[in-house]
Amino acid sequence: MRPIGHIESPLQDKLLVPRQPGLAPSLHCRLRLLPEFAREEAWRGIEGFSHLWLLWNSHKTEGWSPTVRPPRLGGNKRVGVFASRSTHRPNPLALSVVKLLAVETDSLLLQGADLLDGTPVFDVKPYLPYSDAVAESVGGYAPEQPELLAVRFDDGAEAWLTTQPVGRRQQIIELLQQDPRPGYRRGAAQPEKTYAAKFAGLDLCWRVDEQGVEVLPPRQPQKS
Amino acid sequence: MRPIGHIESPLQDKLLVPRQPGLAPSLHCRLRLLPEFAREEAWRGIEGFSHLWLLWNSHKTEGWSPTVRPPRLGGNKRVGVFASRSTHRPNPLALSVVKLLAVETDSLLLQGADLLDGTPVFDVKPYLPYSDAVAESVGGYAPEQPELLAVRFDDGAEAWLTTQPVGRRQQIIELLQQDPRPGYRRGAAQPEKTYAAKFAGLDLCWRVDEQGVEVLPPRQPQKS
Repeated sequence: MRPIGHIESPLQDKLLVPRQPGLAPSLHCRLRLLPEFAREEAWRGIEGFSHLWLLWNSHKTEGWSPTVRPPRLGGNKRVGVFASRSTHRPNPLALSVVKLLAVETDSLLLQGADLLDGTPVFDVKPYLPYSDAVAESVGGYAPEQPELLAVRFDDGAEAWLTTQPVGRRQQIIELLQQDPRPGYRRGAAQPEKTYAAKFAGLDLCWRVDEQGVEVLPPRQPQKS
Repeated sequence: MRPIGHIESPLQDKLLVPRQPGLAPSLHCRLRLLPEFAREEAWRGIEGFSHLWLLWNSHKTEGWSPTVRPPRLGGNKRVGVFASRSTHRPNPLALSVVKLLAVETDSLLLQGADLLDGTPVFDVKPYLPYSDAVAESVGGYAPEQPELLAVRFDDGAEAWLTTQPVGRRQQIIELLQQDPRPGYRRGAAQPEKTYAAKFAGLDLCWRVDEQGVEVLPPRQPQKS
C-alpha cells in the first residue's frame, strides 16, 4: 500500500474532524496527487461524476479495539468496532464520500471531507449512484444525522472574524454545531471549561453552555 | 494490512463476477472470520444495519494501468483508472456494498457480493444511510444499471438443472444476463463460440446469439 496523494485541509486537529463526511459542506480540501499519479490520462472521465470515494489511511490512530463508544450513543454505550465507523480498526482503512468541486493541475478540490490535513490517500473511486446509493438501507443506531447545537460568537470572536476569509464563520458553525467534544460529554453544558483545537493555523476556542456553543477569540497555537 | 476473514462463494472464476455488487441478488456468500476477529463483542450492534461495506484485497489483479476500457462503454473507449471501479489500480483495494442476511457463529451471510471465492477482506463497515446514500449524485458514463440480455436454457441444461439446488436457475440468469464476456464483445452475437467459467464447482457453459444468452449443459471443470 502506498499513497497516491495527501490531503491539504484547515482541519489540523483530530478533535474538530467531522464524524462523517458531508457534515461540514463549507469546508473544502484539496487532494494533492503525487507526481506519478497526477497524469491526465489516469483521471479522464472523472469530471462526469459528482461524488467520489476516498479510501485513506487513518494514520493518526494506533491499535484496534474490539469495542468502541460511538459519540452517537452519548459515548457511554459500547458497540463492536465493525458496527461503527471508528478508526480503531484492525486495518487503518477509512472511507469517505466527498463532492468533486474541480479537477486542477495536480490536485482535486473536494467538499465535505472528514480528513485531517496531511492524510495519505490510498485510492479514489467514482461514486456510482445505481449501486452505491442504497435507498432502502437501514442505519442501526445511527439512522439520521446527529442533532446540532446552536453556535454563537462572543464579542472578541466577532471582532476577530472581521479579519478572516469570507467563509470562515460558516465553517466554524458547521464544525462546532456537531459538539466535537469527547463523546461522553455529548450535549452536556460545561460553561466553566474552555476547549481549544488547531484550525487553519490558529487555536480555535469555545465553550458549551445551556444555550449551545459560544465561540471565543482564537489563540496563537501552542507548541505541541 | 491483514485480512480479517475470507469470502466463501460459488463465484470461482473472474469472468462471472458481477461488475458491481447488487447485480446478482440471488447469489449469497459468506465472510468467514479469522478466529481473532470472530469475537461477539467486535460485532455488537451490526444486526441493526441492513447493508455493509466490504473493503477487500483484489488479490487476483496484478499491476495498475493509468487507463482502462470499462465494459459499460463497450470495451472500446478508454477512461482513467480513477474514473472507474476497475481493479487495475495502484493499490489493490476494492469496495462493495452488500446486504447483511445473517450473523452466524464465525461468519456473516451476505447478499449481492461481487467477490471471488477466497477473497481476503480487510474491513467491514456499517452502511450509514444519512452519509453514504447520496441521492443527488451523478454517475458520469455509468448513470444507470447496464442493459440485460435474455437468458434461456437448452434441453441439456434444463435436464441438469433438475438435479441442482432450488436457487441455481435464478443465480445463473442473474450472472449471465449481464453478458460477462470480455467488454469489447459486449452485446454482440457470436453464436459459434462457447464460453465456459467455473461456478459452484462446475464449468458453466453458454453462448450468445441474436436472442440473447443460451445456457448449455455444464462440464466437469478442466484442470487449470
